[in-house]
This record gives sequence, structure tokens and C-alpha cells, in this order.
Amino acid sequence: MLEKVDLTKKMDKEHYKEIIEELQIKLSSLERQVRQLKIPVIIVFEGWGASGKGTLINKLILPLDPRNFNVYATNYLSEEEKSKPFLWRFWVKTPERGRIAIFDKSWYRRTLVERMDNGIKGKELSSSFEDIKSFEKALADDGNVILKFFLHISKKEQNRRFKELESNSSTAWRVNKEDIKHHEQYDDYIKIIDEMIEKTDDSFAPWTVIESSDSRFATVKVFTLVIKALQEKVDEYNSKKEKKSAISQSVGEASIINSTTLDIVDLTKTVEKNEYKSKLKEYQQRIRDLEHEIYTKKIPVMICYEGWDASGKGGNIKRVTENLDPRGYEVIPVGAPTELENSHHYLWRFWNKIPKAGHINIFDRTWYGRVLVEKIEGFCSEEEWKRSYNEINDMETQLTNFGVVIVKFWLQIDKDEQLRRFKERESIPSKNWKITEDDWRNRDKWDQYEGAANEMLLRTSTTYAPWTIVESNDKYYARLKVLKTVIDAIEKKL
Amino acid sequence: MLEKVDLTKKMDKEHYKEIIEELQIKLSSLERQVRQLKIPVIIVFEGWGASGKGTLINKLILPLDPRNFNVYATNYLSEEEKSKPFLWRFWVKTPERGRIAIFDKSWYRRTLVERMDNGIKGKELSSSFEDIKSFEKALADDGNVILKFFLHISKKEQNRRFKELESNSSTAWRVNKEDIKHHEQYDDYIKIIDEMIEKTDDSFAPWTVIESSDSRFATVKVFTLVIKALQEKVDEYNSKKEKKSAISQSVGEASIINSTTLDIVDLTKTVEKNEYKSKLKEYQQRIRDLEHEIYTKKIPVMICYEGWDASGKGGNIKRVTENLDPRGYEVIPVGAPTELENSHHYLWRFWNKIPKAGHINIFDRTWYGRVLVEKIEGFCSEEEWKRSYNEINDMETQLTNFGVVIVKFWLQIDKDEQLRRFKERESIPSKNWKITEDDWRNRDKWDQYEGAANEMLLRTSTTYAPWTIVESNDKYYARLKVLKTVIDAIEKKL
Repeated sequence: MLEKVDLTKKMDKEHYKEIIEELQIKLSSLERQVRQLKIPVIIVFEGWGASGKGTLINKLILPLDPRNFNVYATNYLSEEEKSKPFLWRFWVKTPERGRIAIFDKSWYRRTLVERMDNGIKGKELSSSFEDIKSFEKALADDGNVILKFFLHISKKEQNRRFKELESNSSTAWRVNKEDIKHHEQYDDYIKIIDEMIEKTDDSFAPWTVIESSDSRFATVKVFTLVIKALQEKVDEYNSKKEKKSAISQSVGEASIINSTTLDIVDLTKTVEKNEYKSKLKEYQQRIRDLEHEIYTKKIPVMICYEGWDASGKGGNIKRVTENLDPRGYEVIPVGAPTELENSHHYLWRFWNKIPKAGHINIFDRTWYGRVLVEKIEGFCSEEEWKRSYNEINDMETQLTNFGVVIVKFWLQIDKDEQLRRFKERESIPSKNWKITEDDWRNRDKWDQYEGAANEMLLRTSTTYAPWTIVESNDKYYARLKVLKTVIDAIEKKL
Repeated sequence: MLEKVDLTKKMDKEHYKEIIEELQIKLSSLERQVRQLKIPVIIVFEGWGASGKGTLINKLILPLDPRNFNVYATNYLSEEEKSKPFLWRFWVKTPERGRIAIFDKSWYRRTLVERMDNGIKGKELSSSFEDIKSFEKALADDGNVILKFFLHISKKEQNRRFKELESNSSTAWRVNKEDIKHHEQYDDYIKIIDEMIEKTDDSFAPWTVIESSDSRFATVKVFTLVIKALQEKVDEYNSKKEKKSAISQSVGEASIINSTTLDIVDLTKTVEKNEYKSKLKEYQQRIRDLEHEIYTKKIPVMICYEGWDASGKGGNIKRVTENLDPRGYEVIPVGAPTELENSHHYLWRFWNKIPKAGHINIFDRTWYGRVLVEKIEGFCSEEEWKRSYNEINDMETQLTNFGVVIVKFWLQIDKDEQLRRFKERESIPSKNWKITEDDWRNRDKWDQYEGAANEMLLRTSTTYAPWTIVESNDKYYARLKVLKTVIDAIEKKL
């Protein structure tokens, strides 16, 4: 998931200056309301070394009344702390009602550096996650606002920052051996951080990844989210009914602070016709062999397609199946739910389509419709689509734990390319049936769909069922990438 | 937990006849409303062999419209079912909105007979529990009413029923080898059933133990609970505000169907003075040795007292500590929370009192105040005390996982004995300070406190931190039992 986050986001100095003051005033005013209403607030900062946690925390507390918050730096365990369950030292630091507790590193150390260094795993690890969950749930149920930020920078950027710190004698002390060790373990850490966020990203205590390459951007994002969360809680207190008052207006920056991943997809990738032809043949041969092998080994496979209208899902699926034995696979086109389907949980119809052992089911659109079209067209409530990220992750966990191979593709094209294809479809009689009024209507909502797709990709690209974004402006390239990804996934399983 | 349930409950034929017809009419009317409002309903029956699941289900469906429910008997896995994740066969049977699905055995087979026979444990077991939880949560969030009943009979009663079935040629076929095997494994099963209920007793899908020694009692209890749950949901639909309308009136049987455990405590137990003196000396010597041993082995111990006013907590604690090294233990009297304590989560002050490694903390009253005095006096909301059972179990899980020994005592006396002690306190000047207006006020609410204590004992007597009910009409007996229980618990840990 972290790997998919667009880390190029930044904010220029002028724009920053323009809005930071307003954000500070807003935060300060909310802090007073929080105090009056006796709302306890917990803000957790985790993140890479040199990602700027300290600086950001300093900026955040600047507008706050110093009598009303505590900053707790969490480091190695004292002797007393070692003699208590790991959450003890945090339970005793939970804020009084009306106060703000800010944690510079937190109980998540247990699932990060302690996990890495002490090899916490298996039952011990899963009960740590459970303990954290019940800790946060108990506090949230008791009225705490809980915000968790992960400050994210790339390995390269981290290296650059360490080098810079080391080159200056007055800052060199800030880089220690441990930092260097963690830097070398970056690629291992990214996996366990992903897992940590997956397992503990609950509606009552959500995680947000903060793109921290640019400190101004990171600051504005954190301020905005803290303000949003406090405002929501204050509104909830002031009038249980009008929970959703004027939040979106009050936080003008909402759209730019959303994490994105589609922005950084390189759509110029192409492949030449000759190479395409030979590779296609090779891959189709290989996938046919694999079809046989998974059949004998009774491994079920699910290949899932999502993507823009006219991004080439149909043609892509055709190339995957062309050479397969039809008794071994099934293509499942997913449209609007029937009345019967609608009268069940939205996942019900997909549970009914789990492949038999040894079979491949190919989904032309999927359960992700819930957080794409159903979300945007209002076919389900906000509460419903919000909880479906977790429900979907749970389902995919159960499937992969059982041994199902899940491969998920998002076929990405840009807006111009879509227009070109729509027009082509309209002009060529044999393709005319492929384009409808609906397609044009959806196109008008491009930005909304893009936002929804970004959120979906970030929230449901898990270690066990990752998304693959397929650069599809060039259909040849897209088809080969899908075939290769499927082949790799099956081979890995075998 | 199951071991603590009073299985002597029954209902005479006349009383049953009087009320069952009314319950049937009510259920039938609610079923129609459920259908109209398109509320999906799931009712799960688990229970011992020969506990009467089949008969009870037949009675339950009698008043229902046959077109509107399905009964699913869950048995061994088919080949297709084996080739899918274990929840698949239940997902596809989830009811349409407005229909009722009744499961005669269910997904819990996974954590019962499959667990026992296939040795499911460790990570596989804990992920089964997680999968079940997320399955039920997804359905509940989607509007399903979920009720889970465990039909409980004693091993002796089960044996009697098997014998009776076998003695009659027309029913002998109903007892098979497997039943006999499970009967022999009764004591092992009771542990894993307790664990199963602990781990999956959620507010959105609660378990209820049905005392099934008497089929009439069991039937009335199930009817009452189904009616209550459906009525609540229907009311919720009809008017989101007045959720709690006239439920208690509509179900007249509410109080008799509560499970109890205190009723069956034998308060006639006594011990003679001479035996008391010699045993007391012996135990006090032993506990002093153990105090030293746990100190060197760094084992923390928590001894927790709850019980009626004047049940002898103070004197009891005195006998435990009399011979101990004061540097090794601390007695923590728990009264009304201070202002500071009140401004935190109610568990906060107890987290602050976790014993250091190797020390003993003795709590004179505990965090269970939440579900006793705070519940009854209305110091917290219904929602708050309801969720605290889970919060408390979570805390005790974390403590015992860390290695803390937790021993919990409920000192039980009867109402007459309390009166005798109150009067004694009033008449003896040196004991006068011990009795206050509050004590008399609480006494007036005896039945409420008894109900709260029963619920507490059943919901929080877990495999890892069980309650011990101490028969305390005779103080000598009570003191020896407490000492012996503490000694056994520490010895077991060592």
C-alpha cells in the first residue's frame, strides 16, 4: 500500500503561508471547544526516521494552549515498563477529558521495531494487534477522538536526509546506528508497516498516511485532518442530529490532501507489435500449462478487473482466456445487482461465485463496485461504503488464507484516451453497441471516480491481495502486463 | 462459565400452557412485521447432543409462515464445501431481507467438533474466530438480527437421555457412536464451548445459554428472546428514536428467564473452630512461602474481592495478609471514583494499580463496580455498562497473557444473614462505623444487585480469569476457601 502512495506532493511557500495561519486559528478555536466539551483527544505520530515527526509535532502544538496538552515521546522500555503488559504505559497516559495527548511514537512500536528486533510473530503478534484494537475501541467508545498518522518518505529521500544531517556537525548526532540499521531494513519495514495499517485501520481510530517529502504539504495535511476530526466531534456534541454540518466548507484543502496513486502512473508505456505478438504467444502458452497445473493441485484462482470505461477490460480478458481450456475457467460479468441480489448483503452474490478448487474465475468488474459506482451514484449510504473497505479486506483475507490466488487489476487510461476511444466507438458501426449514454454521464464524473479509485486502491491493496495498476493507454502493453502478472502470481503460489 | 449456570430451572405444565399461546401469537405477528420491513433474521442453535435442538426448532417454527423461513441442518462437509473457505456454505445461505434462516448447528462446528477432531489450534483457530466475527459483523451491519443459542444440559442429564433413547427400539437409532464419543469428551468440550462463547459473544450477535434440562423452560426462554430481539429491531425501524419502547411490558417473562448461578450456592457449608484454626495456620504459612517464591520469580498476582455488604470482605482480606511480608503486597480499597478518575476511562484507575512483577495487589472491590453499583445506581449509561463486560474481559486477557495471576472472589451470603450482621453492627459500638444509611439503601435493592451479580458472574467468568463464589454465611469456611483458592492458583502458575 505505502509503495503506491504518490510521494511527489508538495506545496509552495506562498500557498502555505496563505493558509497555515487560518488553520492555526481554527485549531486553536477548536481546542478551546474541545476543552469546554471535555472531549479527550489522542494523536499518534508514527513514521520513518527523519520523516519529520518532531518538527511536525512542534508545529502542531504551536497554536495550542500549553496547559492543555501533553507530548509523550515513546522510546525504549524502562524496567518498570518491562514488568507490565505492553499497553500499561499507554493506558496510564490516556488523556483526561478535555485534554490532548500527542504520542511521538506509540503502542505501535510493539508491531514495528519490537516486532523486528525481538521476532514477535504468530500468536503473540496477532494478540498484540487484538490488544491494540480493544484498547483503541475502549477509548473511542468512551468518547476519545483518536487520530493516527504515518509519516511516509521514500528510502531514497530518507538516505538523502540522513546524509544531510551527518554532513553538518551540529546535526550529525541526530543520526545514530539504529537509524542506519532501520534504513537498511527499509524494504522489510515497509511490509510490516503495511500489515500494521491493514490490521488496525478502524473507523473509530483511522490511520492516515502523510506524504512527507515536503514538510509544508505534510503540515497542512495533518492540520487539516486534526481540524476535521475535532470539528466533527464538536458538531456531534453540539447537535447529535446535524453531525455533518459545514465540515467540507470549513476545510478548504480537503481535496488536495487526499492521498493519490493514479497520478504517478506512467501512461506512456508501450510495446511494439512484433514483440507483442511473440510475447503474447509465449504467455498464453504458459498460462495454459498453469491452468492444467492448478487444476491438478486444486488451487482456485480469482482474476479481478476494474478500470475506466473503454479501458480495454473486454479485450484484455479475451487475451487471457483465448488459449485456455474452457472447462477450467469462467468469466463472470458483473452488472447492476438483480432484485434477489439486492435483498442480500452486497457480498453475497460474490460468495456465490467463488471458484471451485482448481478453477479460474475471471470477474469483469467486481465487489469493488460498492466503493466506485455505488458510492458515487448514491446507491448505498456513506456508512455502508465506508465499512465495506474492511468487509472486502476481510473476505479477501479469508479467501487467501484458504489458498485462493487473488489477482486484482485496475486498468488505467487518461481522459483524452477515453475520449478518443468513445469517439471511435461511435463512429465504427461494429463497435457502436459498446457506447451508451451512461458512459458519457460517467465521464462527466471523472474526478469523482478518480478520487474513489484512489481511495479504493490505497485502502484495499493489501499484502495478501495487492492491486496491480495496468498502464492501458497502449492495449498491447496492458495485455502483456496482465498476463505476466497472473503468471507470476500463480507460479509464486505453486 | 457453563459450569456456573443453574440447570435446575423448570416450568410447570400449567404455567407453560398459560403463556406459550400468547408467545406464539406474538411471534407470528412479529414475523409478519419483519417480512414487511424486510428485516433479515438469523437464528443459530448449538448445544449438546440430546439437548433438544430439534424439538425446540420444531416448536419455534410452528407459528411461522412456512413460506418465510428456512431451516438448515449443518453436518459433515460435502466435497464442494471442502473445496471452499469454511464460511462459504453459510454465506450462500444467508437470508433474503424479510426472511428467517434457522441453523441447526452452524459455522460454530468449526470451533467445536472440527476443532476437537482435527486439532485446529493456534493461528488457524484464532483466525477462525476472527472470520466468524467479521462474518457476523458484516451481516449485522447490513441489518440482520442475529441470535445464537447454546442448549445446555449437564453430563449426567445427557447420559440419562441417551440411556432413555437407547432403551426404546424406536429411538435407539438416534444415538450413534459419535454421540457416545462426544459424551465421553464432555469435560473437554465444556472448555472449548466456554472459550467459543467468550470469543464470539458480541453485542451485534450475542450468545444466550439456554438451560435445557426442562424443555418447557427452554422453549419459553427461546421464544421470549426471539420476540424481544425482533421487537427491538421492529421498533428501531418504526421509530429510530423510541428504540426501547414497551419491550419490558410486552415480554412478561423477562426476569425468570435470566440465567442465574447464585441460586445454587450452598450456604450451609461450615467449618469447625478447631479445624479452622489449624488450617488457617497451615495456609497462612504456605501463602507466605509462596509470596517469597513469586517475588523471586517475578510473578504479579491480583486478588479481587466483590460481594454483598457485610459479607466479610475486610476480615477475609485480613486473614490473607496477616502473615505476609508487607513489602510484597498492597491492599487497594476501591471507593467512588475521584474527580480525576472520573475524567478518564473507568479502567484507567485500575491500569494504574497493576502490581509490579513479583507483587500481590489485593482489591477490596474492583473494576466490576461498573456492572454492579454503577449500573444499578445509573452512574453510567446502559450502553456503557453493556460494553464493559467485553472491555473487562479484554483487560483480563491482556493481564493473564502477560503472566499476571488473577483470582476473583464473590463473597455470597443470604439476605437473612446480612440482616443479622447489619443489626449486630448497629448494636455493637465498636462495629458501629461499619454500617451506614447506604448499606440499608443497597439492601432494599437486593434483587437488582443479585440480578447484576448473576449477569456479571456469567459474562466474566472466563477460562483465563474465573470467578470463585465463596459461601460466606460461615466466615471460617469463607476464609479458608479464599486462602486455599489463592494458594492453588499460585501453585498452578509456578
